[in-house]
Amino acid sequence: MNARFYAPSARDLGSEIELPDEEAQHLTRVLRLKAGDSLAVFNGHGGEFAAIVTSATKSRVRVRLDGRAAAKPELPVSLTLAQAVLKGDRMDAVVRDAVMLGFTAVQPIVTSRSETSLAALARSARHERWHRIAVSSAKQCGRAVVPAVAPPITFGGPDTLTHLPSPQFLLVEPGASALTTAVAGVDATAPAAATLIVGPEGGWTAEEVQRYAGHAHPLGVGTLTLRADAAALVAAAALLARWKLV
Amino acid sequence: MNARFYAPSARDLGSEIELPDEEAQHLTRVLRLKAGDSLAVFNGHGGEFAAIVTSATKSRVRVRLDGRAAAKPELPVSLTLAQAVLKGDRMDAVVRDAVMLGFTAVQPIVTSRSETSLAALARSARHERWHRIAVSSAKQCGRAVVPAVAPPITFGGPDTLTHLPSPQFLLVEPGASALTTAVAGVDATAPAAATLIVGPEGGWTAEEVQRYAGHAHPLGVGTLTLRADAAALVAAAALLARWKLV
Repeated sequence: MNARFYAPSARDLGSEIELPDEEAQHLTRVLRLKAGDSLAVFNGHGGEFAAIVTSATKSRVRVRLDGRAAAKPELPVSLTLAQAVLKGDRMDAVVRDAVMLGFTAVQPIVTSRSETSLAALARSARHERWHRIAVSSAKQCGRAVVPAVAPPITFGGPDTLTHLPSPQFLLVEPGASALTTAVAGVDATAPAAATLIVGPEGGWTAEEVQRYAGHAHPLGVGTLTLRADAAALVAAAALLARWKLV
Repeated sequence: MNARFYAPSARDLGSEIELPDEEAQHLTRVLRLKAGDSLAVFNGHGGEFAAIVTSATKSRVRVRLDGRAAAKPELPVSLTLAQAVLKGDRMDAVVRDAVMLGFTAVQPIVTSRSETSLAALARSARHERWHRIAVSSAKQCGRAVVPAVAPPITFGGPDTLTHLPSPQFLLVEPGASALTTAVAGVDATAPAAATLIVGPEGGWTAEEVQRYAGHAHPLGVGTLTLRADAAALVAAAALLARWKLV
């Protein structure tokens, strides 16, 4: 199988495009490809191509798009993950897994118990880092789509997430709300789009659950306590199975 | 909530027992509990107790079992994970996640593409390490059962895993076998027990899939390539949802 590279500008067959810096370095320094070598290129919004290296120096690589290739099919449901920012590099793992599982967008949120702030996240350029991780995960799992990672926002009043698709599911601990539905209680017909909202290590405050329960379905997955960095993966896999999409 | 400790010898109400070394050190050095303090104790095979510290020195802690407590309910299906040993400490993460998700047993296997051997695993005492991780994960996720981690075996002929419960599901890449079933094609009635068989980073050889396809159902989860250390978690969550157990 040819090595696979991300080139957001790839669009027209026959055109010659330049690879982004990081991709160019990977191609020349790690894989040591040269002019004339074949490669696969995806543009992150669904386009997958067969291509040829036309010129390669250490930092600049140009490739010609020679043919369209079949992109891996996307899920028929457009899934958004609203994930509370986790500690250290755990959020990186969540972004990576969300891409692997087929989410189409990630909205990082800062909740009452998040141990960070929008300012701290901006200082550490986390948002750019998450985008790079999304690209890298799409390369590994074979997706032609790189999910958008939105800039982090504060999870405040119940209208904070109205810009995200409905139905919305608020992942809660077993017994956190009288309104909690098990996955088996979710409508078995797959919606066109949905949002999964997942809290931080310390969970939601009772107030957050109460405020949001009228807007999102509180969803419980089993009776065990899931690790914060595995919760989205487990809940999403269960929902996809509920909707017969896996 | 009281701190929770693992004591495999906990059985009879009113009896006084000694905590294992590691647990005793955690109690005295980290949590600094003293004689008279309350704690929760679980024995790893389903027993959960309220207890009192009766004596505590640095390395020896005795506790009295004062009452039975409600153990978290186990899944109604007894799930065994036959997992190819992964590289580095990735297998640790899989054991941890398997406990969190409710598996009752883990059978490490060495497959054609496993980059290790039974001898190497024995030398590095990995089996004892996995048991400790299973204990630690049970503490964190609140289970009163510590799943048994069996000694690793070689995944050889198709009769290698006949000692594990049926039905058995061999997790395969999309399109790996003409017999592959999606999760949506699995019988929706939950079995009493089942085994999920998951390969290593490099996947199964075609020969392994062919040899085993008559004994286990080749199971595909979606169309994406799952990371080896997340595959069991995703497949198990999907199966539990298929069986309406979450």
